[in-house]
Amino acid sequence: MKRIVSGITPSGDGSLHIGNYLGMVKQSKELARNNDCFLFVADLHALTTIQNKEQLQRNIEILILNELALLGDLTNITFFRQSDVPMHPELQTILNNVTPLGLLKRAHAYKDKLAKDVMEDEINLGLFNYPILMAADILLYKPDLVPVGKDQKQHVEITRDIAERFNKTFSPIFPLPDAYIPESVAVVLGTDGQRKMSKSLGNIIGIFDSEDVMKKQVMSTYTDPTRAHATDPGHIEGNMVFTYLDFFGEPKKVEELKEQYKEGNVADVEV
Amino acid sequence: MKRIVSGITPSGDGSLHIGNYLGMVKQSKELARNNDCFLFVADLHALTTIQNKEQLQRNIEILILNELALLGDLTNITFFRQSDVPMHPELQTILNNVTPLGLLKRAHAYKDKLAKDVMEDEINLGLFNYPILMAADILLYKPDLVPVGKDQKQHVEITRDIAERFNKTFSPIFPLPDAYIPESVAVVLGTDGQRKMSKSLGNIIGIFDSEDVMKKQVMSTYTDPTRAHATDPGHIEGNMVFTYLDFFGEPKKVEELKEQYKEGNVADVEV
Repeated sequence: MKRIVSGITPSGDGSLHIGNYLGMVKQSKELARNNDCFLFVADLHALTTIQNKEQLQRNIEILILNELALLGDLTNITFFRQSDVPMHPELQTILNNVTPLGLLKRAHAYKDKLAKDVMEDEINLGLFNYPILMAADILLYKPDLVPVGKDQKQHVEITRDIAERFNKTFSPIFPLPDAYIPESVAVVLGTDGQRKMSKSLGNIIGIFDSEDVMKKQVMSTYTDPTRAHATDPGHIEGNMVFTYLDFFGEPKKVEELKEQYKEGNVADVEV
Repeated sequence: MKRIVSGITPSGDGSLHIGNYLGMVKQSKELARNNDCFLFVADLHALTTIQNKEQLQRNIEILILNELALLGDLTNITFFRQSDVPMHPELQTILNNVTPLGLLKRAHAYKDKLAKDVMEDEINLGLFNYPILMAADILLYKPDLVPVGKDQKQHVEITRDIAERFNKTFSPIFPLPDAYIPESVAVVLGTDGQRKMSKSLGNIIGIFDSEDVMKKQVMSTYTDPTRAHATDPGHIEGNMVFTYLDFFGEPKKVEELKEQYKEGNVADVEV
């Protein structure tokens, strides 16, 4: 039985979309079958982007409810809110002293922010040193694996660096965790078929959105631009409707639909 | 009754010298007569310089014993160890998000480190953002005054900056504290008569050192280089023996000694 740690930030409006579900919740459920999982709502991390306390409180509540509804069975899962465990900031404060500025300057999140025309001096320390808080989040639980998307792989490497420095400076306390990135769900593309599904890009399909909203999201999904009529033969590759069906549909039925689509026997809307 | 907050770092070997006593302990005792004092051993700050856990533990114990012995009466004083109060790092983690990098880059401690030929990338984040931990240390207790040496005045200003940014971003929670710097004890010079008394400069007179050690410290004190013999007339100004006597001696007796010294009736050693 391995130890797993995973956190999710209550950003956007706090609700989850199918990209989050496939990339994180579904994975956690599967891992929790045979492993010891620590799963937390990373509300302290949200402070780097959300600085309105009512919105933050609402986001946290929505995310907790979304996660509980989707996770269902909590056997093997310790589910908690980051700010309820003071050891996260305590360990961050300690790890600050074994983390050189150079290591943080190489972090993607910081470099991305700089690339966006923001003056370096205006960037908050919360963003600059969030890899240290993330290292504390992880190391505190001495996990074997940290399930992350490809974009977070670097932060697990920084965590290993910090753990090595701590072990060398004080005592060999922290085992070095590995990033766990299942290829199939590493990146779930959005309804535009181009970019990672992300609330800020407006290319999501929600889970708990109202029927109206979801209908609009589904209807805007990228299918096959070469196909003008339902009777034209269609293409499956890169067609997001079938990408999502591969995740959620019953395999036999999805195969049948694909055949019919290719032959021109079924309309986009029918799929 | 005003609220006062003051911390002292267990650096060096943890023991106090008369510079600490005059600059900090004596002041705290006086302030505690009519004010509500929070006084703490800043062990989390020590991590920026001491990374040996046995030494740090020993220093903390020595400092606590030194302070308790010198403070005596603890009425009006809440005396505690920083790392025992998780709200210090918790508030630091929150304040990180309202502190721009530019503010930290202007801090003296960071600039001094850079000036010492240290590569910027090699500096630990613990040193870079210690003004934020100090801001958390202070703001947590909503004090009116923060007694500090002149060298720490800037950090109280940074604390006020951070408090203003927090209040504007979230809610008006933190009153802005003032630095309290009594002129007379702002800087206690060391036995060399040149620089601030400091363990790392080796120009101290201890309080709880052994008789041998203290004798050596006192004997090395800067007096009057123009005076070759005890019978030569001596100078009082800048003569560290008399500087210390002004702090500790009985005023009448010190005046008599000064007269005799100027007339050449008393030797350095006798003073």
